[in-house]
Amino acid sequence: MTSRTLDFWFEFASTYSYPAAMRIGAIAREAGVVVRCKAQGWDTSPFNIYAAKGRYMWRDLERLCQELDLPVVRPDPFPQNTLLAARVALAAAGEPWFEAFCRSVYGAEFGGGRNIADAGVIGGILDERGVAPATYLAAAQTPEVKERLKLQTEDAQRLGIFGAPSFTTLDGELFWGNDRLEAAVAWASRPVTASDRHSDI
Amino acid sequence: MTSRTLDFWFEFASTYSYPAAMRIGAIAREAGVVVRCKAQGWDTSPFNIYAAKGRYMWRDLERLCQELDLPVVRPDPFPQNTLLAARVALAAAGEPWFEAFCRSVYGAEFGGGRNIADAGVIGGILDERGVAPATYLAAAQTPEVKERLKLQTEDAQRLGIFGAPSFTTLDGELFWGNDRLEAAVAWASRPVTASDRHSDI
Repeated sequence: MTSRTLDFWFEFASTYSYPAAMRIGAIAREAGVVVRCKAQGWDTSPFNIYAAKGRYMWRDLERLCQELDLPVVRPDPFPQNTLLAARVALAAAGEPWFEAFCRSVYGAEFGGGRNIADAGVIGGILDERGVAPATYLAAAQTPEVKERLKLQTEDAQRLGIFGAPSFTTLDGELFWGNDRLEAAVAWASRPVTASDRHSDI
Repeated sequence: MTSRTLDFWFEFASTYSYPAAMRIGAIAREAGVVVRCKAQGWDTSPFNIYAAKGRYMWRDLERLCQELDLPVVRPDPFPQNTLLAARVALAAAGEPWFEAFCRSVYGAEFGGGRNIADAGVIGGILDERGVAPATYLAAAQTPEVKERLKLQTEDAQRLGIFGAPSFTTLDGELFWGNDRLEAAVAWASRPVTASDRHSDI
């Protein structure tokens, strides 16, 4: 396995995962870094728990997306129930249209304000990719896929991940937030040596 | 008052305020932006409440400071009691050595691991600036300064500030975090027009 690998941990309900998901492909490609996408499954948002932080986040996201020429709306409800989208993403892992599917989910949710808990919305996105919706909507409900999502969420916790988007490198670095995307890709593109392992301060 | 003004809200216990405080002078000066420093007074740290986030933060800070060639150690205890430092900073506001004092407090705490709750440490920093420590250590204990710190912390809450470092502009924008320093300075250096006021999304 190449050392130029970066694991991208995202959550479809996570607002800052939206610009990160839209940006990571081009940035990683330019640095020669292979991205492995890892969906997580959450059930609440820290931005609803802390009101002042939530108000700030929407304005900050609006400013960020304006810079990136990305549309942004606040989906209702927020956070969305992302279990279906995450399971479909897991069922689709390895497919050539997988990354485009993920970007379309984010675009529908935060660019179009659509409810991604709706099987019709997810099915429509699959359909646009030329994929039979029924196949993946059914696969999403199998015990195998449900179990895989659970294991992946446990993996995230074991790696010390506490939010999304997060990025982890093979030599054990964790980067949190859309703001750290460039730093994470730069780290992943460094040659790995034993002395790179960090010490605790 | 010039529109090219940025209010810098910091907390001496706040880890990410350390690189922000070390960087803001040069970045604002280059953009022709006047910085008004506003100390806050906290009594806990979100990084001690959430263990995984805390572990991440120290490693992230270590990486950031390495990039900036800033030394970084974890002060003990963390967070430090910053009431004395914040009150001395308020008593010293307007003095020509005020900003250097603030940088020295951060340097002693996060660069040197010293306890800034200790009047001897704060007095030593004042002494290094050629200022009589007794004058400002006494001023820090006056009802006027204590009241001013309380009012400033209330101002911060009214502005929607929920963490440090934060930056606010005269046209009502809030930017949170060392990562937003450049964006905040860039915003403050824009000409202000009525249409710049943001809409809620």
